[in-house]
Amino acid sequence: MTEDERAIRNLIDTWMSATQKGDIETVLDLMADDVIFMVAGQKPFGKETFAAAARGMTNVRFEGRSDIEELKVLGNWAYLRNHIEMTITPEQGAPVHRAGYTLTILRKQEDGRWVLARDANLVS
Amino acid sequence: MTEDERAIRNLIDTWMSATQKGDIETVLDLMADDVIFMVAGQKPFGKETFAAAARGMTNVRFEGRSDIEELKVLGNWAYLRNHIEMTITPEQGAPVHRAGYTLTILRKQEDGRWVLARDANLVS
Repeated sequence: MTEDERAIRNLIDTWMSATQKGDIETVLDLMADDVIFMVAGQKPFGKETFAAAARGMTNVRFEGRSDIEELKVLGNWAYLRNHIEMTITPEQGAPVHRAGYTLTILRKQEDGRWVLARDANLVS
Repeated sequence: MTEDERAIRNLIDTWMSATQKGDIETVLDLMADDVIFMVAGQKPFGKETFAAAARGMTNVRFEGRSDIEELKVLGNWAYLRNHIEMTITPEQGAPVHRAGYTLTILRKQEDGRWVLARDANLVS
């Protein structure tokens, strides 16, 4: 495994664990300022919208795991296919299970850090 | 517009027009042999599965248009965000309208031709 591959896998691990902890600032720090998220039934949205949605989910418990199915580094860019399973438990109410795949494009910044740049999320 | 950008835009135009004509062989020729398609609610699938599904749709009229929202060439790779609208009209029955976004990764082959390599389709 190359150093870049390891850095990207660490990014995904950090993303999942920070999401579980509700540590939104850490998650936001893992994405480019011009990141674009794509989900079904919505227009693509950016970091501000992601942040607002995440801050609206603080009363929710989140458990998730990811299995990276493919990771390809292309110089200062990379793409990654992931399978995600998660359970979302509201403060009051039954847990909801979700699973599905993502296609993500990552970019290595000038400071050497990898960040999420584009993300198509098919989890349903 | 660079030569690569033009070639990729031509690929998308050809894909849409060949799909409308039911010219499945042309569409299959625009994708890598190891292409992976991702859609909601299914496991990622490859060229054989795509071909079988397309051949099962011959009694259907397809009209579509695409608006490329972003195209970024990264050497011999590229990614593309597209918005697709389509109307599918079965031989008997009412037309069905679908719209949504895609995130696609393309690769330039050794022969200089661009082909689809990965495709996440959020059209719903």
